[in-house]
Amino acid sequence: MKRRSFIKTVGTAGLATGALIAGAPAVHAQKKYRWKMVTTWPKNFPGLGTGANYLADIIDRMSGGRLTVKVYGGGELVPPFESFDAVSQGTAEMGHAAAYYWKGKSPAAQFFAAVPYGLNADEMAGWIHYGGGQKLWDGLYADFNLKPYAVGNTGVQMGGWFNKEINSVDDYKGLKMRMPGLGGEVIKRAGATVVNLPGGEIFPSLQSGAIDATEWVGPYNDLAFGFYKAASYYYWPGWHEPGTVLEAFVNKKAYDALPSDLQAVLDQAAKAAYNDMLSEFTARNNAALVELVQKHKVKLRKFPEAVLKKMAELSLEVVADAAQASPDSKAVFESFDNFRNQSANWNRIGEAGFSAARSLAIKS
Amino acid sequence: MKRRSFIKTVGTAGLATGALIAGAPAVHAQKKYRWKMVTTWPKNFPGLGTGANYLADIIDRMSGGRLTVKVYGGGELVPPFESFDAVSQGTAEMGHAAAYYWKGKSPAAQFFAAVPYGLNADEMAGWIHYGGGQKLWDGLYADFNLKPYAVGNTGVQMGGWFNKEINSVDDYKGLKMRMPGLGGEVIKRAGATVVNLPGGEIFPSLQSGAIDATEWVGPYNDLAFGFYKAASYYYWPGWHEPGTVLEAFVNKKAYDALPSDLQAVLDQAAKAAYNDMLSEFTARNNAALVELVQKHKVKLRKFPEAVLKKMAELSLEVVADAAQASPDSKAVFESFDNFRNQSANWNRIGEAGFSAARSLAIKS
Repeated sequence: MKRRSFIKTVGTAGLATGALIAGAPAVHAQKKYRWKMVTTWPKNFPGLGTGANYLADIIDRMSGGRLTVKVYGGGELVPPFESFDAVSQGTAEMGHAAAYYWKGKSPAAQFFAAVPYGLNADEMAGWIHYGGGQKLWDGLYADFNLKPYAVGNTGVQMGGWFNKEINSVDDYKGLKMRMPGLGGEVIKRAGATVVNLPGGEIFPSLQSGAIDATEWVGPYNDLAFGFYKAASYYYWPGWHEPGTVLEAFVNKKAYDALPSDLQAVLDQAAKAAYNDMLSEFTARNNAALVELVQKHKVKLRKFPEAVLKKMAELSLEVVADAAQASPDSKAVFESFDNFRNQSANWNRIGEAGFSAARSLAIKS
Repeated sequence: MKRRSFIKTVGTAGLATGALIAGAPAVHAQKKYRWKMVTTWPKNFPGLGTGANYLADIIDRMSGGRLTVKVYGGGELVPPFESFDAVSQGTAEMGHAAAYYWKGKSPAAQFFAAVPYGLNADEMAGWIHYGGGQKLWDGLYADFNLKPYAVGNTGVQMGGWFNKEINSVDDYKGLKMRMPGLGGEVIKRAGATVVNLPGGEIFPSLQSGAIDATEWVGPYNDLAFGFYKAASYYYWPGWHEPGTVLEAFVNKKAYDALPSDLQAVLDQAAKAAYNDMLSEFTARNNAALVELVQKHKVKLRKFPEAVLKKMAELSLEVVADAAQASPDSKAVFESFDNFRNQSANWNRIGEAGFSAARSLAIKS
């Protein structure tokens, strides 16, 4: 449909301006659009909030100021978790978040953010753009008058900060840990007490001992948050969020009102922002991890294999349960799971195969 | 500099159209730009040629037809390997290739395409956008009146097709293999006879026994090429090209003549195309690998560890030698190598750590 409307537009422009192609200026009527973007992040929050700013900035630049998007931090215009409703109802034209926040709206939404033992950053983009994911996501959000986009990715996250070593699954019994989403459900089944806390309360809670452990994002964000001051053990890998997608959602009426060139700007700005955010996390996680270990003497630990194995079993159960929540969830899960089975095979041979080979040359 | 000119432009537009923001149409003088893009690929070649088409298409759509880019297959306008000179001299405004083709122009160029045991797709983007790579690349190509962009990535490639098993480094002695670039130099030092062949001659040469082995890209491209009909053994991982960057280069005079909104369209179209091509390869390699193994009974083999270790040693030597080729090469190598050392550490903990954990849940 988008393709057809593009051809139509170009055709029309061709007729209207055919005589002007040789370089004479065309005269065009241009309407300006002033949009608001609500976000679930603190304003300018590293990586995520700045990712929202980046998206707004490139839309502005590419449109030559014809479509400007003013970014609001969480709580500035509406409370963070009312962003979805606000854009659905047209209070703002656009939102920036992660889809697992909307599982109360539709349980299938969380498949478009992060799934324990799910897909990494490149695989999520592969599934969304070339594996049928975008179509399912469009269908899901259309019920709320929204059009969704993948606009960023954190890459593989870290397993979290702990005030003690994790030597076996038993160490999760009674462990008070902050972990949202499907991952939280997994450790709950392993015996943990799952605590949900807003961002600002995590650090003091960890420091006071009100919680024993927390996950957040990865080295770049975690260093900025100062968690190393409150817990010594930093575990990997982040099995619970292997490539969390940041999303933008656009009010469909606002989108439909745009001329096709500005629609294309939005469509492609999403992909550009995805590439940019993932690049930033990839580059900055490197440097932050070195600083955490060398300067702040963080004890970097790998989860024992038995723990990873148990969490894998529980994750498959939890995700299968989530898939039963609604017919939508089931359809999304089946597409996701099919893609994952193929991805795991290719990843083993491709990315993981190369990483193992490189470790023979580059000692780390 | 780009930032300043952007602010200036927005400021001017603000003054000129300030009264129109409330929704009244602005009247704008608009010039149309008709560009040519020469490529090193056959027209519409899967992944690479279609990637060039995608880039041209989104520039057209985002600019509302104000900047159109006509794509020429290799040889249509100029021979493939004259693309660089053609754009440098202004015969075409834009080119689409891989930077290792231009090592004769500047030995440092190949660091921006693929380095044996180098960086994967996400790391290449991280280095280019947030690790100082783009600045070095800009400097390198400025000498040729060109502005370079990363506009795609194949992901980790495969190790290649062989007509016999590779059980030890000795099996490379006298092996006639088609492998370009730094990887070719590596296997030459391992005793292979390196053969360079244009794309169209590879398959018949493999079938006739004129060569014993060839690398190409990955399952998606290799399946389309039909290599499984000429060789049985398909080896992984592709240590020689762990995340090959496709590039676009733009004639600087043509770029400078664009208004700032169209410059921004080009800048961001590059990132969008990178995300899109990598997504396509990620999704399609999965499916193609399954077809190669299940339908065409290809014998999938992992290089023995001793072979990977020897190739790693030789690769470090070859790359260090390439770094000595010019002061530019040395500067680029140092930036690249520094980024790689950090990347290898974070990759082990992040992506590779997750992949290993997932293999406990998803059998492949």
